[in-house]
Order: sequence, then structure tokens, then C-alpha cells
Amino acid sequence: MGNKKKFLFDDGTFESPVVKVIPLGGLEQIGMNMTAFEYGETIIVVDCGIAFPEDDMLGIDLVIPDITYLKENAQKVRGYVITHGHEDHIGALPYILNDIPANVYATKLTIALIENKIKEHPVPRKAKLKEISCGQSVNLGDFRVEFIRTNHSIADSAALAINSPAGTIIHTGDFKVDYTPVYGETIDLCRFAEYGKKGVLALLCDSTNVMRPGFTMSERTVGKTFDTIFAENTMSRIIVATFSSNVDRIQQVINSAEKFGRKVAVEGRSMINVITAAKELGYIKAAENTLIPIENMKNYPEEQIVLITTGSQGEAMAALSRIAANIHKKVSISPNDVVIFSSSTIPGNEKNISRVINELTMKGARVIYQDTHVSGHACAEEIKLIYTLTKPKYAIPVHGEYRHLAAHRDLAITMGVPKENTFILSAGDVLSLSSERAAITDKVTTGGILVDGLGVGDVGNVVLHDRQLLSENGLIIVAIAFDQASGEIISGPDIISRGFVYMKEAEELINELTDVVNETIDDCFYRNITDRVKLKNRIRDSLSDHLWKKMKRNPVILPIVMEV
Amino acid sequence: MGNKKKFLFDDGTFESPVVKVIPLGGLEQIGMNMTAFEYGETIIVVDCGIAFPEDDMLGIDLVIPDITYLKENAQKVRGYVITHGHEDHIGALPYILNDIPANVYATKLTIALIENKIKEHPVPRKAKLKEISCGQSVNLGDFRVEFIRTNHSIADSAALAINSPAGTIIHTGDFKVDYTPVYGETIDLCRFAEYGKKGVLALLCDSTNVMRPGFTMSERTVGKTFDTIFAENTMSRIIVATFSSNVDRIQQVINSAEKFGRKVAVEGRSMINVITAAKELGYIKAAENTLIPIENMKNYPEEQIVLITTGSQGEAMAALSRIAANIHKKVSISPNDVVIFSSSTIPGNEKNISRVINELTMKGARVIYQDTHVSGHACAEEIKLIYTLTKPKYAIPVHGEYRHLAAHRDLAITMGVPKENTFILSAGDVLSLSSERAAITDKVTTGGILVDGLGVGDVGNVVLHDRQLLSENGLIIVAIAFDQASGEIISGPDIISRGFVYMKEAEELINELTDVVNETIDDCFYRNITDRVKLKNRIRDSLSDHLWKKMKRNPVILPIVMEV
Repeated sequence: MGNKKKFLFDDGTFESPVVKVIPLGGLEQIGMNMTAFEYGETIIVVDCGIAFPEDDMLGIDLVIPDITYLKENAQKVRGYVITHGHEDHIGALPYILNDIPANVYATKLTIALIENKIKEHPVPRKAKLKEISCGQSVNLGDFRVEFIRTNHSIADSAALAINSPAGTIIHTGDFKVDYTPVYGETIDLCRFAEYGKKGVLALLCDSTNVMRPGFTMSERTVGKTFDTIFAENTMSRIIVATFSSNVDRIQQVINSAEKFGRKVAVEGRSMINVITAAKELGYIKAAENTLIPIENMKNYPEEQIVLITTGSQGEAMAALSRIAANIHKKVSISPNDVVIFSSSTIPGNEKNISRVINELTMKGARVIYQDTHVSGHACAEEIKLIYTLTKPKYAIPVHGEYRHLAAHRDLAITMGVPKENTFILSAGDVLSLSSERAAITDKVTTGGILVDGLGVGDVGNVVLHDRQLLSENGLIIVAIAFDQASGEIISGPDIISRGFVYMKEAEELINELTDVVNETIDDCFYRNITDRVKLKNRIRDSLSDHLWKKMKRNPVILPIVMEV
Repeated sequence: MGNKKKFLFDDGTFESPVVKVIPLGGLEQIGMNMTAFEYGETIIVVDCGIAFPEDDMLGIDLVIPDITYLKENAQKVRGYVITHGHEDHIGALPYILNDIPANVYATKLTIALIENKIKEHPVPRKAKLKEISCGQSVNLGDFRVEFIRTNHSIADSAALAINSPAGTIIHTGDFKVDYTPVYGETIDLCRFAEYGKKGVLALLCDSTNVMRPGFTMSERTVGKTFDTIFAENTMSRIIVATFSSNVDRIQQVINSAEKFGRKVAVEGRSMINVITAAKELGYIKAAENTLIPIENMKNYPEEQIVLITTGSQGEAMAALSRIAANIHKKVSISPNDVVIFSSSTIPGNEKNISRVINELTMKGARVIYQDTHVSGHACAEEIKLIYTLTKPKYAIPVHGEYRHLAAHRDLAITMGVPKENTFILSAGDVLSLSSERAAITDKVTTGGILVDGLGVGDVGNVVLHDRQLLSENGLIIVAIAFDQASGEIISGPDIISRGFVYMKEAEELINELTDVVNETIDDCFYRNITDRVKLKNRIRDSLSDHLWKKMKRNPVILPIVMEV
């Protein structure tokens, strides 16, 4: 690629207009989608998602993107443009809008779901929510952003055509091609083609399913499976667990219920929120008496009921897990239940889902989890279709783990994008693009910020490491009070343990450890070591040695020496 | 099933001989296979496995079965009969043999692997290891146990025909039907048929893959895939990650290596142990110069090397994870590497495996994980074959989660076993069987015992709960020294936190918390509360309230009041 210096677009050596693409966040593997696009004095932010914590982020509730770069350039930020209403695309808005208020642009259902979030965490008045229809554009500084209709597992999803003086960048968002969608119309392939004809500078395209060959099945195929299951189980109550945000899936459950004369009850707070919003806006259609409050289920025979619930991932606090464990107030499982998991398994949730299925099976329920879900993401052939229509100069795979992005790059190359025009970006990379050249020209500060309770960013690696140590080995505290004047121990050593051994067994052990501490202190005094820090270290070391030799354990040891 | 009393076989009301089947352990979902068979004054124990800890067993190394029942009947225990050499069937022997020494009976390779284990944890001399060949029987008190050749993912696996005066019980162990096995011969289906003809009282049969239709592919199919991959990648180094115990898989890697003129190096302690034992006994065959020490890899060009390694489950400390993370001393990854995952994903390991694949991909390696593994367990049609041959009176599904056992029961019923003759046992259930009747007649104490370091059973629910709390919320310690005579605080409060917030941020917070503690103490003294326990509780409550209101956090709070 020649001498890197020549590619420093910002230094004035270069003539064509340059647009910058800057992925923010840092946990690509688990969502948290946020990308800044910058041209001259304008920055727009596409999506603003949260990520859920990794297994080693003990006690963390969620992770939001570090927006240091946006804060440093706050005066440039003209708006947030959101592709669709999933948590990993909208979840961080309540946090980010407070730091950098600006208008939010999205389609109708997406706006409604953002409004729901903002009700719980109010944001500055300066940040207004603006509804945009697919086919419409919005001017934001040097950018004109057009919303293009797509299909996905939530209605009103959009791709974006981000037009700038440097050229047009297409961002697909999360998408699939569904020729028979449940709500609305097929993805606007013609618009992609029109942009392709005019010339597309770069394509940022969904990589989630790039390693799956072929086409993703239409959402409507799930409806057919539901009909079959409903027809085969006319004497049973039916429970359907799915993602609360999958409005089309819920619609199809309602369709089958109406076809087979069943009422539909809904359980799970997020599910009720989404259905309420979607129904008000007309994204869910149901006959007047189909939906009933869960309290009224008892007024109908079981075989006339469908219960739609959250908890398809086996989440411990979700409705289905509580139902399966027999600790739900309103619903209990009997051998007359058929439970449908209408969902995929999000990696990491396998064991929890198995646990719930086992519990349901033990109570006699029939559990069905095959052919009851289709993905909301495009497989390889659909992605190739988008490349064929848009013919981008540069390919920037997005949405997926590194191995997906790498496979997507290979696909782009087979579709005719030169290898040097493909970019797998890390969070913080500044990719500068012009019609003539492209290169990563800078790196900005970003990453994930951990949220624990109300604390945003006050838990970091040291704290997590301590939590890890405490969780694996437990804790021993040794407290002594030390008379500075006489140089004598006047109280203690008191030894307390948590998470180490049974208290019963601990009694003898604690006597033993007390002896070890006393010997250590005697030895220190004998050697004239009275410095508090040194004393603490000696106590810690001697206990640690003793416990490792005796038990092959390594608890956190906290000596407390009080001087009186 | 009539009046339960009539089924109490032990009370002398019943005439036919009765044999008892008692599953021990308690974590059916994750292995730890151990079943006691009892007739009159004889108990034999089939398999003696460990389980790996569940996610919520923080800091636990492994789980072994609670053998209280065997200890109470130690004089009856005539021997341990082991079906094959996997950890979930032999891993607890070093622990259990120390409590109840008795001879161990198994086939040649299994004995060798048990010897390996016992080298690390010596057991009493009274427990001798006795090699039995398939086709042979051993008399143990009232039982005569015949070993019957099977196929599985480790060589020398056996089913057991447990003959007693009450009839013959067949225990399949873990098995599949492989008509073209890599080592040895096909499962001895004729012997199953002969027993079926004579009459089988009960069948305990592997349920792992019962929910998969059809037949499990032959192990040999993986060899063909290896040949194809080797042929396509003649210019690359090849790394194969697999289970260390899968001797046949390792043999096939060696076969392909020899065919394509490559040397084979091995990395990972458990892998080296197994290969050494298997090679000595002739279960692995290699030309004299094929296997080379890993140190000698550098003497050969990369395209003449195959490295076989542990770590196919993404285990953090295993060789492949360290190689992928670039922290392995002897191996580093380059774009010239092809890495084959020749393994299935054990539920719970999905994220770790993804992490390793991503790291390998980032370093440019090509990762292959499709069609490079077959299961070692029978699918539905194979299980049906065993039912057809043995025609058992009673069906007792074993090995699997509850949902697998339930599906297996349904399969047994379709194969003609009356529903009332099928039993899904929980650990500790005593199933009494005679030629005329069968019922669960008793329940004995059992369960999983947690092993943490050298401590066996000294970590229980309270300790685990404490570890959970510490891991999610961290810890705050408040230490004060209190003069009994004057009733005054003479040192402190000292506040220490771990796993709670950054120390930087903590400084201000700790001042604030110190104020809260001081106010609480003043208030207590004002109200004349000087009792140490009450004082501690007040301090804990006021801090807890304050932190929840301010931060929505709930750390473990440990007040220490020293009286001097």
C-alpha cells in the first residue's frame, strides 16, 4: 500500500473530499453498535447500543460505549441516526444523550421504543426524537441520510444511505431479505440498486450469518409451523417463549391463536411494553377480544389459551424460568402444557436454557424447539445480493465476531472488491475514505464502560480482578489492635472468613490460623519489626503459605492493624 | 401401580429374588456416573466418575459423589467395575478408594488410565487393579459380571452384563455402534442378542444422543475428512485440537500425517499422558519416527508438521488457548497455520471456543470445525437396536439430562416396554427389581461433594453463596477499636474495600462512609447501645442503606469491633 504518510488525508496533501468512519464502543463480539461518521465540521452517530456483560465481568449490569471522542468534538455532533429498535442499537441512548444531547432520527416503531426507554431515564430537552419514514432523508450538516426499508426480526428496520461530498456510504444495519414479510413490505432492493448505479463509496454490511450458506428463511415459515403445532395440540394449553422485541413473531402467535379459537395472554414486563407500543401504532393487529390480561386466563379452559412469555434464553428472573421453577404467582406447569421455544440460543445461554427445558419436562410439559425460529439476519447469498446491487468501492464488514468479519471480507473479495479495499475495523480506528484512497489514519480513545447499579464507569479491571479472586477463593480477615506506646497487641488477632470454608469446619482451622498469626507477630517483634505495613505483609505471607501448604487454597487475606 | 406397601420387597412379603439399582452422585446433568447394584450381602459399584463444577459453583475444582450409603455398607462392597476410561467414569476413584478400598475391574486401557490417576493420588494397597478382557466375567459375591465389547470415543469400552439370582441387568456404559471402528472390533452385538434370548431383567442404556434421529457416523469418517484437509493444505502447518482421551481420533491424525509425510508433535499434559499410555499398550500405532518432541518441531519445515493439542473447549489454561493468545512458550500462530477443531462443543463452553477461534483468525490462521468430529454416543436407531436385541423387561435410561432420559423413556415405550416398567431414577433412589415386580422402595443419602483444592466437602452452600455475593458486589470492611472501660472509640473507623469501586473514586466515598459510620456510632452511644453485636448490626444497616440509596449497590459489609 506504499508509503503510509501519503495517506494522511488530514494534512492537506490530498485533494478529494474525505469522509471518516469511526466505530466506537469496543466489544464487537457482543453487540454495542455505534459508529461515528465525520465529514468536515459534521459528525453523525449511527446507532447507540449497549452490550450485555461477559462472564468475567462479575456483578456488572451492562456495558455502554466510551464516547470520549464525541465529547471532545461535541460541537460537531448533529444527530443520532438509529437503524432499528433493538437494545444493542438503542440501549445506550439514555446515557449518551445526557452527555451529548442532539436529535435522534428513526422510524416510527423505533422512536416508540426509544420513548419507552427515555421514560425510565429522562434526557435533556435539547435531544428531540424525530420520526423519519423509509424513503425520506434528513439533512445533518454536510450529510444527507436516507432511510431505506429493510427486513429484520423487528418491524420498521432501516438501512441508511449516508450521502456526503466524499460519496455515499450504505450501512445495512441488521437486515435480511424477506420476500414475504409478516408486517410491511420487502426490503427496498430497488433503492439499493439505484445507489449502486450512481456509485457507492463504501458498504457497511451485517456479518452475523455470513458463515451460513444460502438464504435465511422467511419469517412467515414460522407461522406455518405454529399452525401445525396448534392443530396437533388442540387439547393442551400452549406457551410460547420468544424475544420480547420480535413483534412479527408475536403477530404470528396471535394469528394462529385466532385461527384456532384461543385467547392470548402475555407475561413478562419487556414483552408487555413492546406489545403495548406496537399495538398502539398498528404494528400488531388483533381482534378486539383476543388479547386478555393474564389474570383472566382462569376464566377459560386451558385448551383455549396461548401464553406468550419472555425467558426464551433461560434468564433466571424472566417469566418462563419462574414458571418452570414453580415460583411464578400466576402460572404453573402441568402435563397438559406444550411449551414452544420460538428463539435461537444466544451463545452463553445454552446451560440456562437446558435447565429450563429439564424443569419443564420434569413437570410433564411437552417442549418444542425445532423449526420454531428463523434468524433476522442475512445469510451468505443475501449478503452477495447486496454487494451485487450496490457494487461498493470499499467493503467494511460490521456486526459480528472477528471470525465473521474475516469470513465477510473473504466474501467481499469473491464479489470483486479488491482485497486492499476491504477493512476490518477495531473500535476507535479512524478509517478515512475518499473516491481515490482509503486508509486507517488515526486511532481514538474508546472502549466499553461498565455500568454497575447507578455507577457508570466506577468499576474497572482492578475491581473486577478483586471480585474474581473473592469469588474463587473467599476471604480471610485478620484484625489486631496494637498499642503504639507499649508496642503490644492489646486485642486480637480476630479472624473472620467469608466464602472460604464451612463455619463448623472453620473453628478448628481458625484456632490454627490464630496460632500462625501469633507466631508471626512474636517473630516480628523479636526482630523489631513494628512498622504497620511490614507487619501486615508478614501476616499475609505467613497465612498464605500456611493455607497453600495445608489446603492448596489461596483466599484473599486482609490483615487490619489498628493502632491505639 | 396399586398399594405401595405391597412393593416393599425387603419386608419378606415377597418371594422372588430382588436386586437393587441405586444411582449415586446427584448431578445427572453433568456426568459423575456411579451406580451401586445390591443383592443380599453384595454391593458392586459400576463406574466412579467426577463432574465438573456448574457455573454457580464458584472456585470449585470438581465434584465427586457422596458415598454415605456405601460407607454405611462398606463390608458389602465387593468391587468397582468400570466401563471405560473417561473422567466422568473413573475420576472419583482416587477419592472413593481411600474411603472404601476394594478391587477395581476394567479392560486394559481403562486400567492403564486409572493407574495414571492413582500415581498422582495413591490409594490403599487393598484396592488392586484387575484387568478383564471383553468376553470374560468376574465373580463378585452374588454377582457375576461379564464385560461385553462396545464402541465409544475411547478404545476398550465395555458394556456390562450383571448377572444375579434375580436376573441379568445390562448396563451399556457410554456406547455407539461403529461397524468400521478405528481400533478393535465392532460392538459385540451377538452377545447382546444371546442375553436377549436368555432373558434380560433390565437395561440401563446411554441416553446422550437419544434425541438425535438415525445413526451416529463411524469414527472412520473423520479420518477421511482429515485426509481431505491434509491434501488441500500441503503448504501449511496443521494443528489439530481434540479431546485428550480420544485415542482413535489421535490415531487418525497420525495416519493422515504419515500418509502426507508429516511429523506429529503433541502438546498438553493430559494429551501426552494418554498418548504415552495408549502407545505403550499398542492402542496407538505410529511409525518409529512419526512422533517427535515438541522441541524438535523447529528442525522441520512447517508444512511437514502436525501439532496435536488439548484445548478444543477453549479452556483458558489449555495449550490451544495459550497458543491463540500468543502466550505459549513453544508455539505461535501465523497465517500459514490451519487449525482443526476435531471436537464437539460441550454446553457452557461456546463463548470460550468462540474467543479462541477469533484470536486464531486475527492472527491469520484458517480455522476448520465442520465435519471434523463424530459423537461417541448412540443415536436413536442404535438405541432401538439394543432394545431389539436385549428385549429388557425393565428400561432404566441413564447418562443424560432429564429431557434426554424422558425422551429415552418414550423410545423404550415405542419399543414395547410397558410404561410402568420404565424408570427415570434420581440419585439416591433405590429401585428394587424382581422378575415379577419393580418399584422405587427407598431413598438413600447421596449428592455431589465439592472439592476445592485439597478440601473435600468443606465448601457448601453457605460458602458458595458468600462467594456469589462477594463476586457481584464486592466488600467493605469497617474496623473500629472500642475501649470497654471508657466506652469510647479509640481507633477507627478504618474502612477498606475490595471489588467495590476504583480506589481513586473510593477516596471521597470512603470519607463519606466514615461520616455515616461515625454518625451511627454517636447515635448508638447516645441511645446507650454498646453491645458489640448490636453495634455491628447498626453499622452494617446504616452503610447498606446509604449505599443502596446512593448507588443501587449492595456490597458485603463486614464491621469489625475490637474491644481493648
